[in-house]
Amino acid sequence: MRVVVPFGVRSPKTRLDSLFSLEERRELAVAMLRDVLDALCGHDPVVVADAPFEASLDVPVELDDRPLTEAVAARLGGDEPIAVVMSDLALATPESISRLFETRGDIVAAPGLGGGTNALVVRHPEFTVDYHGASIRDHRRIARDIGATMTELDSMRLAIDIDEPRDLAEVLIHGEGHARAWLVEAGVELHDSGSRVTSRRNRR
Amino acid sequence: MRVVVPFGVRSPKTRLDSLFSLEERRELAVAMLRDVLDALCGHDPVVVADAPFEASLDVPVELDDRPLTEAVAARLGGDEPIAVVMSDLALATPESISRLFETRGDIVAAPGLGGGTNALVVRHPEFTVDYHGASIRDHRRIARDIGATMTELDSMRLAIDIDEPRDLAEVLIHGEGHARAWLVEAGVELHDSGSRVTSRRNRR
Repeated sequence: MRVVVPFGVRSPKTRLDSLFSLEERRELAVAMLRDVLDALCGHDPVVVADAPFEASLDVPVELDDRPLTEAVAARLGGDEPIAVVMSDLALATPESISRLFETRGDIVAAPGLGGGTNALVVRHPEFTVDYHGASIRDHRRIARDIGATMTELDSMRLAIDIDEPRDLAEVLIHGEGHARAWLVEAGVELHDSGSRVTSRRNRR
Repeated sequence: MRVVVPFGVRSPKTRLDSLFSLEERRELAVAMLRDVLDALCGHDPVVVADAPFEASLDVPVELDDRPLTEAVAARLGGDEPIAVVMSDLALATPESISRLFETRGDIVAAPGLGGGTNALVVRHPEFTVDYHGASIRDHRRIARDIGATMTELDSMRLAIDIDEPRDLAEVLIHGEGHARAWLVEAGVELHDSGSRVTSRRNRR
């Protein structure tokens, strides 16, 4: 199975710009990418980046400056199954990836918080993607329209993509890799807001 | 295995008070409780409520007006395994509950977003609970201190408890039961905020 990891280099993690500079957000994005690649270890992933970036990775990098949906869609349609795993799943583990890849179905999707589609396994040549808005619902519809079965994976580790400051708390609580280490070094710590625990940054 | 579902009646879902009246929040809380009880079907759950409430349920209801931590702790310590499942897991399914109950370990925990502990299976007589703050970390520590193994279940459906307006989007996208039907009837619908999809209410 081919494994593709789309990676947005140009304006990563804009919803974290209240906490981090562009340079810092690029560093964090690379740290999360490394966590995803570690979870994909043994599956020969290929990173598809929308621009060149400075990081020595042990995997091939393809440049494709098209928007996410177009760049992924261009890689679908073959007879070989293909997996698409987002690059900001900082809680992904080899176990959660194994569950994803071992789940049966023409289409297997790991939903993201807020209606996203954080990981896909596509075993049907007619399936295509639409990552705009509540994409998991669009992907359900696309699968239905082509008569494909779609199975949704019940995984917290693949559901939590890191987009917003409150998501950083999840990395601090559940993360074990590069992103967590980067956040700790950057002075991000848990903040008990009285409701859900969130995160805050101590400027140094 | 005994199965306990703590249910807060007195001031339910206060972080939804921008959307719903107290009476509406009580209705929604009961709808979510019904979804949890449906997911627990066949496991003979007991509801532990902090006050009497108006709802005809098919399960026993115990009244215990102590705070959550104390009310749950008072029910631990026996030789029989006990499960504690929160009442606001509107996405819980029989499948996610089966995974919880079938996972091995002295302690099995389903983390909630923001560091909570949404479901527990306790098979160690010395384990106790602390639901304040980032309780999953406290429960890891408590298990470690008594030499118990703790396994964390990777489940999105058990991780998403319904506390905040944005959580309602998850019910609309993934829910299939009473809570989703109540929200639709109440005029809550998905709202694409441009980032994650959230929810909004159309006043009628």
